[in-house]
Amino acid sequence: MPARWLKLTVAYDGTAYAGWQIQPELPTVQGALQTVWQQLTQEPVNVTAAGRTDAGVHALGQVVGLSTDSRLSNEELRRGLNALLPEDVAVIAVEDARERFHATHDAAGKRYRYHIHDARLRSVFDRRYTWHYPHPLDAAAMHAAGQALIGRHDFSSFESAGSERPDSVRTITELTVTRGFHAGEFLRNSQLAVSEKLPHAPSDRVTIDVAGDGFLYNMVRAIVGTLVEVGRGTRDTHWPAQVLAARDRRQAGQTAPPHGLFLVSVDYK
Amino acid sequence: MPARWLKLTVAYDGTAYAGWQIQPELPTVQGALQTVWQQLTQEPVNVTAAGRTDAGVHALGQVVGLSTDSRLSNEELRRGLNALLPEDVAVIAVEDARERFHATHDAAGKRYRYHIHDARLRSVFDRRYTWHYPHPLDAAAMHAAGQALIGRHDFSSFESAGSERPDSVRTITELTVTRGFHAGEFLRNSQLAVSEKLPHAPSDRVTIDVAGDGFLYNMVRAIVGTLVEVGRGTRDTHWPAQVLAARDRRQAGQTAPPHGLFLVSVDYK
Repeated sequence: MPARWLKLTVAYDGTAYAGWQIQPELPTVQGALQTVWQQLTQEPVNVTAAGRTDAGVHALGQVVGLSTDSRLSNEELRRGLNALLPEDVAVIAVEDARERFHATHDAAGKRYRYHIHDARLRSVFDRRYTWHYPHPLDAAAMHAAGQALIGRHDFSSFESAGSERPDSVRTITELTVTRGFHAGEFLRNSQLAVSEKLPHAPSDRVTIDVAGDGFLYNMVRAIVGTLVEVGRGTRDTHWPAQVLAARDRRQAGQTAPPHGLFLVSVDYK
Repeated sequence: MPARWLKLTVAYDGTAYAGWQIQPELPTVQGALQTVWQQLTQEPVNVTAAGRTDAGVHALGQVVGLSTDSRLSNEELRRGLNALLPEDVAVIAVEDARERFHATHDAAGKRYRYHIHDARLRSVFDRRYTWHYPHPLDAAAMHAAGQALIGRHDFSSFESAGSERPDSVRTITELTVTRGFHAGEFLRNSQLAVSEKLPHAPSDRVTIDVAGDGFLYNMVRAIVGTLVEVGRGTRDTHWPAQVLAARDRRQAGQTAPPHGLFLVSVDYK
């Protein structure tokens, strides 16, 4: 049987990992997946991934590519991997891919989501998945300000040092900031019901969705950190456009913490 | 200033704790709270709690009683405790209570919620807060079967050994089983959107709400374990009524695992 090329869709809670990319002596999602693959198939593997998520960043739909000589069916591989993987990593799908499929290079677009909890009191249940920002945010102002980032731009201002990428031009196709429901909202509502003080209170969650053809190092987190300055009122809604035009990372806001960030999905042509 | 009596409402993620009640050498929620109280007020304290939740059980609205000579205001106490407490415990409210308030003895009713995830694939994000039951459940049948437990009954069949309670008669005022949204649903929907296979799939979450005047040791978890047998179809909807009538713990289903259970709220007269 000649080698087959496979595309895996993987979800993980990044809390316990030093990021996606394999590193000696550190727990990584790639390391966990490759170890389990070898246990299951008895063959070593070196996988590619759409996004090398940083330490603490989560994934709902990371895409992983690999080739294999295994005779196990895709469904047998999916079940076998899930039986062996730690409980914070799960393979959602195993599908056939074209020959020489490369999850990084072939990716045509990615979608990220960022969760903020803008209440005074921290949530004990969302703490791993949400940035607790203890000041009220104006989500509508953040959304308005973010629209200037849509399109094809040099995003140097939103790129952390240490990147190896040759150029900083990327295209953002969507950027929405919404106040509302996300993971844990139900628990929060239960808490409010308990106190019986704010039964119909507006949500204290802000969700930022960003889609584009590619993202620079820490780009989504720098955008979130910049929009939060607008949301809090320390900067006006024109400021992110000025930051973008400056092409200078020192002009942007802080890099938002990793644990609010999710790689949601990856598109391929 | 004479001693004041206070009522604290406390939320916690029980994952890391050996339960509510203080025990030597083990991490407990009561131990964490009392340690922090002493740090803040410089006075030792021995608190009462509405429910001594087991290891791994969570609380959205545990109620805690104590008396204090502290001159700090209720709001100063709440903020100070939250600043010192570990991130998996939070004080939602600090309120004045009547003299000699006892959170356990004065409780007139309690409400619990239990979360089940009845899908083949486990969720990496809900794993601490939801029982993963990899077989489809008939929530309507579970609800119908559960109605026989409402009212004043001897619940010996749903009481684990080791209890010190003198009698087993309790009143359940509400028992509802619903299929639908709860913590993590949003993340799950995102996962489905990724696979693009089941964009309008019904929820794979089942929520069981139980309220009553009091609960025996492991009573909610034994009820859940029993209703699940009906939901899976291995027992018919009349079976829980028969289990109740038998007054024999060996007749009931398994004790559902602790991590799906939340103490939601406590009522006082």
